[in-house]
Amino acid sequence: MKRSTTTTTTLLAIATSYLFLLITPTPKSTYHSLFISNSLSDNTSISNHLKTLTRRPHVAGSEANAEAASYVASVFTSSNIPSHIASYEVALTYPLSRSLVLTNPPPQPPTTFTLHQQTYEGDPYADVADEVVPTFHAYAKSGTVAAPVCYVNYGRVEDYLTLKEKNGVNVSGTVVLARHGKIYRGDIVKNAYEAGAVGVVIYSDRKDYGGGGEAKSKWFPDDKWLPPSGVQVGTVYGGLGDPTTPGWASSGGECEKLNKDEVEKGGEVPLIPSLPVSAADGEKILRSLGGPIALDDWQGSKDAPIYRIGPGPGILNLSYYGQDVIATIQNVIGVIEGAEEPDRFVILGNHRDAWTFGAVDPNSGTAALLEVAQRLGKLQKRGWRPRRTIILCNWDAEEYGLIGSTEWVEENREILASRTVAYLNADSVVGGPRFNVRATPQLDELIKRATQEVKDPDNSSKSIYESWTSSDISPLIGRLGGGGSDYASFLQHVGIPAADIAFGGGYQVYHSLYDDFVWMEKFGDPMFQRHVAAASVWGLVALWLADEELLPFDYLSYAKELQLSVENLKDEISNKDINLSPILKSIKELEKAAIKTNKQRKEIEASDGWITRKKDHLKVRELNDRLMMAERAFTDRDGLVGMSWYKHLIYGPSKHNDYGSQSFPGIDDAVKMAKNLHTAESWHRVQHEVWRVSRVIKHASLVLAGQLT
Amino acid sequence: MKRSTTTTTTLLAIATSYLFLLITPTPKSTYHSLFISNSLSDNTSISNHLKTLTRRPHVAGSEANAEAASYVASVFTSSNIPSHIASYEVALTYPLSRSLVLTNPPPQPPTTFTLHQQTYEGDPYADVADEVVPTFHAYAKSGTVAAPVCYVNYGRVEDYLTLKEKNGVNVSGTVVLARHGKIYRGDIVKNAYEAGAVGVVIYSDRKDYGGGGEAKSKWFPDDKWLPPSGVQVGTVYGGLGDPTTPGWASSGGECEKLNKDEVEKGGEVPLIPSLPVSAADGEKILRSLGGPIALDDWQGSKDAPIYRIGPGPGILNLSYYGQDVIATIQNVIGVIEGAEEPDRFVILGNHRDAWTFGAVDPNSGTAALLEVAQRLGKLQKRGWRPRRTIILCNWDAEEYGLIGSTEWVEENREILASRTVAYLNADSVVGGPRFNVRATPQLDELIKRATQEVKDPDNSSKSIYESWTSSDISPLIGRLGGGGSDYASFLQHVGIPAADIAFGGGYQVYHSLYDDFVWMEKFGDPMFQRHVAAASVWGLVALWLADEELLPFDYLSYAKELQLSVENLKDEISNKDINLSPILKSIKELEKAAIKTNKQRKEIEASDGWITRKKDHLKVRELNDRLMMAERAFTDRDGLVGMSWYKHLIYGPSKHNDYGSQSFPGIDDAVKMAKNLHTAESWHRVQHEVWRVSRVIKHASLVLAGQLT
Repeated sequence: MKRSTTTTTTLLAIATSYLFLLITPTPKSTYHSLFISNSLSDNTSISNHLKTLTRRPHVAGSEANAEAASYVASVFTSSNIPSHIASYEVALTYPLSRSLVLTNPPPQPPTTFTLHQQTYEGDPYADVADEVVPTFHAYAKSGTVAAPVCYVNYGRVEDYLTLKEKNGVNVSGTVVLARHGKIYRGDIVKNAYEAGAVGVVIYSDRKDYGGGGEAKSKWFPDDKWLPPSGVQVGTVYGGLGDPTTPGWASSGGECEKLNKDEVEKGGEVPLIPSLPVSAADGEKILRSLGGPIALDDWQGSKDAPIYRIGPGPGILNLSYYGQDVIATIQNVIGVIEGAEEPDRFVILGNHRDAWTFGAVDPNSGTAALLEVAQRLGKLQKRGWRPRRTIILCNWDAEEYGLIGSTEWVEENREILASRTVAYLNADSVVGGPRFNVRATPQLDELIKRATQEVKDPDNSSKSIYESWTSSDISPLIGRLGGGGSDYASFLQHVGIPAADIAFGGGYQVYHSLYDDFVWMEKFGDPMFQRHVAAASVWGLVALWLADEELLPFDYLSYAKELQLSVENLKDEISNKDINLSPILKSIKELEKAAIKTNKQRKEIEASDGWITRKKDHLKVRELNDRLMMAERAFTDRDGLVGMSWYKHLIYGPSKHNDYGSQSFPGIDDAVKMAKNLHTAESWHRVQHEVWRVSRVIKHASLVLAGQLT
Repeated sequence: MKRSTTTTTTLLAIATSYLFLLITPTPKSTYHSLFISNSLSDNTSISNHLKTLTRRPHVAGSEANAEAASYVASVFTSSNIPSHIASYEVALTYPLSRSLVLTNPPPQPPTTFTLHQQTYEGDPYADVADEVVPTFHAYAKSGTVAAPVCYVNYGRVEDYLTLKEKNGVNVSGTVVLARHGKIYRGDIVKNAYEAGAVGVVIYSDRKDYGGGGEAKSKWFPDDKWLPPSGVQVGTVYGGLGDPTTPGWASSGGECEKLNKDEVEKGGEVPLIPSLPVSAADGEKILRSLGGPIALDDWQGSKDAPIYRIGPGPGILNLSYYGQDVIATIQNVIGVIEGAEEPDRFVILGNHRDAWTFGAVDPNSGTAALLEVAQRLGKLQKRGWRPRRTIILCNWDAEEYGLIGSTEWVEENREILASRTVAYLNADSVVGGPRFNVRATPQLDELIKRATQEVKDPDNSSKSIYESWTSSDISPLIGRLGGGGSDYASFLQHVGIPAADIAFGGGYQVYHSLYDDFVWMEKFGDPMFQRHVAAASVWGLVALWLADEELLPFDYLSYAKELQLSVENLKDEISNKDINLSPILKSIKELEKAAIKTNKQRKEIEASDGWITRKKDHLKVRELNDRLMMAERAFTDRDGLVGMSWYKHLIYGPSKHNDYGSQSFPGIDDAVKMAKNLHTAESWHRVQHEVWRVSRVIKHASLVLAGQLT
């Protein structure tokens, strides 16, 4: 019986392998080369997309942003990519009234700030400038406060410590003045509240946004720097997604919603009012302050006045009232169904809503997304179909708190968890010349490979990889611990491998009136070649993930990266009685599993023959499922302590800085607390967090190895 | 190009379909018929297994139980099933000293209870009776208390309410005397503690365990009933798994463990001492009580004395000291690797450890498991290999709190979550003649089908199905909300479809000295045909799940069952302002998804041809993954409020009765609380729980439909 089977199989093999040649399709790699070739890329088209998308300010919930959604959908359609709108009814806020008055000691007159960003001469967008939402903080507490001002540098926890310990200043009862820069503005307000402040004003210091002392009179439109009246608008919400539906989707029709009281009890919206102001206004307030002179590194640029801390003597009267609305937001979702594995998803995402015109943030990314869509459309015309499903997402209301992507992920959480290979984000994809990437480490090698294939848009004699690796960026690839963009819910809530790519550097008009098409054409990307290159890298990584039979994930990089993180942790807790061997042991197991998996991959590749394909198909799938699901295993159902929405124990935000990008956020927070409290119990909690991390790494290694105990 | 493809494909089809006939394997259905045929089943072998397994008492952690593990492993090996031991180091307790003395008012002498179960004349196990662990409660609080006794019926929350409202009795400061029966003994102790009692004695009333008034002198070995000195031993732990590793596995080597204080703070171990006693001892204590006469339904059997409530006048002196040990427990895991989908698991499980000899509980199940293993071994010899992997698990330390299965599931959680098709449990699989099954509803039809194929062991002219459905059991198929056996962590923690099967009825020697082979031979299953039948149903369901190309899950049953649960809920909350339409709407969506899925299954079945199999393979897998993962989506990461280890929002235990088998435990608990508190806020919480349930049902329907929004 056995012999007869073998014989027929052999006969079959000979007979059909000849026939098979006749129907061999174009190799996927041919399409991939085509994708990044000049023949498919189109910088003029990208420029046109950007111009169209940014012709009006388009904050989330506005008619202009709905128009932009239609535009995105129309480009998908014309690229033969079926799309639909996933809309949600969410709680947004707009400013209703704002005022800021500094009452100086007599005889000085009070100063009333206009809170207005000035258009410039020849500004082509001057006629729609009044459509820009007035400068404010989304989800700021409504109210009026009047109190002396205290300067708190960047408003970090350590800044308050400095104030207390070095200057003997207590900010309780004051309005604090902080400068933008080091931490998330929402955390500036939160830290201020926790320190006892009654209101917060945040300004953009010339040192950070104005090009330094040398650039004192050079700013947009003459240079790339933020003009003196420029204001960084933004959200101060600490959570993700619609604040009234924490953890679940704001689906249309019937849906559970928290009321305002419940939202405030949730602790993620500020409980004191705040306003953002310009460099000019910030400096004015600073000049009014008395009290001790601030430390050197708290000072401004060389030509700035001496900064004093206050508090007072003047009284700052801050009034902000917001309007709460329920707005319809629209994610545009384009789907290219996979030919062989339609139930495996490679997702590309970028948001569309902008505080003002959004030329860099976010529509450079939207333009690149549309470029990717068009190139994929062209590939489809030439016969390409992806092995796995590619999903192109254009998110709404990111600026308010990653709302569009979060609601969608929350709504589709279970199906995304079981099907998604990777999520590739691009937010402000072009703001300068420097290539910049953050990713979960199993994607590192793949991203490096892609940058080797694509030319540096600013130096065509080199690949992006060559320019990138010869720069001083360190580490070369960043990680995604912070909550800065739409990858957050994919990675930090569900455990999906993720990356975020950008060309950046020198983009200081962030979230201001001046983030417009003129700025992009003059400073960001005059030839739109950076956009072309971004679309190439972004799309190529996606194509490989969608088309390669075996998923190109390398978990050895993950093990190495975790090892590095442990080294950093060791420094943090040196001479404390914390046992790190559980983590080290689990990393070893992950490494072993990675080696085993890489070996199996090679075996499958070597044995590949179409006649045995029937069986191999499920073998391939088995290996791929392990590669895909291993990242999920880094999540823990209980999540981070006190921030339980965040399930990933390797990458997540730390408590006092949502932008922080530490590994092991749970350990990190516990260490910070222990160093504060100096109790045995608090160090015991650090050890507990070490155990928790070691356990998720062990889970990941079991999933990767495909091994039951 | 297209034409040429078609032509070659057609040629290929004709040429190879002829050759294919030569190598067609035996259909799986032939093996399945063989599996339940007389030629493979063996009641003598089952009887021998049971006799061997029960020849000595084998409590968890004992040498005898390790011996039994070796026996199980040896049968796996001789059946050509590779196996390994998954061992854990866990915290168990054994009794160190026990005493119970009733001091009566003078001149009556004090009564000292022997707390001893008597062997009977001709007892073949009399020589090893001293190996039986003395009667106690596992994880009982060590300590000595002396207080008047108060009779509290079954010790339920409503019994305390009756005491307070009808009898005006406050149990605070007393030792309560409760009878076994309606709720989990751990909850009897917990409720007593919450009512202010200082100690608990639980006895087995003759009305419930002694065969009623008519059977007053007939008990084992003359009849099946519990003898007067018989004691129901058991755990009073409220959690699952090793109490020192809540939520994670007690792996060997380094492992985080809670200390005793931390365990007690966790709230799952009792904080007052307790002891179980016999019917005779319970009655003696009852006779000593004064105070009001208990209500009619609190009374005992007709010939029993009148029960009074007390408290007192006598003082009961209860002393219990336990010994805490770290014991090695051993799960025996046998694996038959799937030929086509090795990464899909069908798991059968039963525990091995017993409080005494364990003839019914649990080794009737172990004997059936070994019978299944042997039959599968025989099938393998005849050429059968399962499509998916079949895993046979023999758990340890179930009696202490489902410890063996829970540690294993916690250790392998992520891989089990992504790979397990179903978990099929059999604990006390034969204790009487009545077929009894509990399952998640998508398994209903499959189980009914299996019972149609297997003859009623007590009436060979009928199928099990015919006898079962003509009995008065209602509902026909129970659900798995309670935490009574090893399915708990699979279903309630991970969301794996599960079933539990048994032949029961009339097994009153539960957890007593008398659960031995003699009892089984005389009363439980004299011919061991019920064991044969149980192995047939259990194994056949497993074989279908492992071999059928399309998973035989029917989610229409699930939708129907949920609809029924909502009807029950409506009665519970009638005239309260609770909106159930979110759940009803989500059930409708689940129903739609089930109809769509069933239709797709038919289409795939109709289109099935081996030439297109390559493509179909992934199509089949896609549908199967949806069917498998839909159950997972009923879990919520945050879990039940206050019992967050329980992630399943449809099936889980309620707070005051771990054996309770309600649907929607979160809603149920919230309703109970609201009815107690009568506040708007508490009813608001009910509504929130309704929303939560509706959301998981919606997640399940999206996963089942394979649909992204």
